[in-house]
Amino acid sequence: MIQRLCVIGVGLIGGSLARSLRSAGAVGSVIGCGRGQPNLEAAMRLGVIDEFTSEPAAAVAGADMVVVATTLGATGEIFDKIAPAISSHAIVTDVGSAKQRVIDLAKISFADAFPRFVPGHPIAGTEQSGVEASFAELFRDHQVILTPAAQTDPAALAEVEQMWCATGAIVTHMQADQHDKVLAATSHLPHMLAYALVECLASTDKTDNVFNYAAGGFRDFTRIASSSPEMWRDIALDNRAALLRAIGQFQTTFADLRTALEREDGDALRQMFSHAKSVRDRALTPRSK
Amino acid sequence: MIQRLCVIGVGLIGGSLARSLRSAGAVGSVIGCGRGQPNLEAAMRLGVIDEFTSEPAAAVAGADMVVVATTLGATGEIFDKIAPAISSHAIVTDVGSAKQRVIDLAKISFADAFPRFVPGHPIAGTEQSGVEASFAELFRDHQVILTPAAQTDPAALAEVEQMWCATGAIVTHMQADQHDKVLAATSHLPHMLAYALVECLASTDKTDNVFNYAAGGFRDFTRIASSSPEMWRDIALDNRAALLRAIGQFQTTFADLRTALEREDGDALRQMFSHAKSVRDRALTPRSK
Repeated sequence: MIQRLCVIGVGLIGGSLARSLRSAGAVGSVIGCGRGQPNLEAAMRLGVIDEFTSEPAAAVAGADMVVVATTLGATGEIFDKIAPAISSHAIVTDVGSAKQRVIDLAKISFADAFPRFVPGHPIAGTEQSGVEASFAELFRDHQVILTPAAQTDPAALAEVEQMWCATGAIVTHMQADQHDKVLAATSHLPHMLAYALVECLASTDKTDNVFNYAAGGFRDFTRIASSSPEMWRDIALDNRAALLRAIGQFQTTFADLRTALEREDGDALRQMFSHAKSVRDRALTPRSK
Repeated sequence: MIQRLCVIGVGLIGGSLARSLRSAGAVGSVIGCGRGQPNLEAAMRLGVIDEFTSEPAAAVAGADMVVVATTLGATGEIFDKIAPAISSHAIVTDVGSAKQRVIDLAKISFADAFPRFVPGHPIAGTEQSGVEASFAELFRDHQVILTPAAQTDPAALAEVEQMWCATGAIVTHMQADQHDKVLAATSHLPHMLAYALVECLASTDKTDNVFNYAAGGFRDFTRIASSSPEMWRDIALDNRAALLRAIGQFQTTFADLRTALEREDGDALRQMFSHAKSVRDRALTPRSK
């Protein structure tokens, strides 16, 4: 059981984690930390946290578990601020979408205390953000990937794993570079495609009102383009290398599709569509919809 | 009121139209026509049609409204088969996703009777297909775009419009080339992106099991890649010119995004994401989710 949980960044993820641990009886008190006073007040009002401060160093004092759930862009600065203030027995973890970058930052900030830092990433979220959108069930049956480094303390890793298990999540371990490659493919690349598609249509739309004729498929397809622009700028930059590789691979596949269409090669198109459909149906059907 | 409706291609669209007109009391009898005996028998069992035949020419005999709801690839052949057999007072319409191509085919097949052909396209559907997936409410509050040619008989147009209104659809009129451009952008391009993404990940997946870590956003984003490969091959080929233009525009926008990422230009990324988000939220929020 966590005696005193410190959540830095009480948004959708941080807020949902606090709610979930509270409802599981897995946490004593929760202190929230963030830059937005109204959001922290909302978190108090909603019973997500017990107290708050805008000072990271003050927030971590006396906490046995510190969860950094800010945007990736702010993570390095937060690490620097909390490193001198964390208790020697405290465990620090994060929820960032690009792990190698976070590990590099944590090594610098925490130095000798780096083994007590456990890099983590819950594969959950909606296109909403802020504590008002948080809910205790967000992580249930979702994957949480922990990417321990060689130096990570196994006891710290076990405690973070236990915390996530209390939320109903399925915890897996992975190398940071493998995580970054997998997430570039399944999450970061699709977000780039959705943003680019809407941006592309927006320029067409000036004269054509194309969005008036968008059907359900389009709404689903572009839902992720309603995600936080700042968060996705940070994710893209922090997972830049793996994402650029995924983008390159996609561009090649898409150029092949274009070539088949230019050549009116119906067989090649059907074959690609058919293979994609069977792969998707096989991979996703069990938990689809 | 339609006395005798002939539906050629009793699948998701054709079946849903018959169901909807029946439940609205807007049709007398319905004859179904198709190549798949089991599907037609299912349509009988489900009460979607009253009788069926596999011969298009026999199917249209005595019908006052003929709806061609086959895949686009079969449309030209169907037109040729029914043209000599349709009653002089019959109206023919279709549901194809690319209108200029259908109009070109109809002009050749129907010749003097071309004015009684009304090109139409209901913007509705799911990734499912077949009559088992059809339901009466499919078109309610969805757009149906009619793209009459200069020669189209206004009375025939009015009757097709009335038919779609009876399903609860919102009927609009548009030039065929404008329709093809709008649909290339909002529907055909997204399908190409979804197929290409899954295909791209499928090759990565050989070693990495990337689909195991796909979150809800990915499921939504790729749902349309579970659509019928044959149908989408036909749509891509039939709307080839407009789709290739849309693909080219997307490739340019996506290359810009890639360049911004290569240059670590966070401002450019945030600006693009932010613009896309605001455009999508503004355009789609009223009916979102």
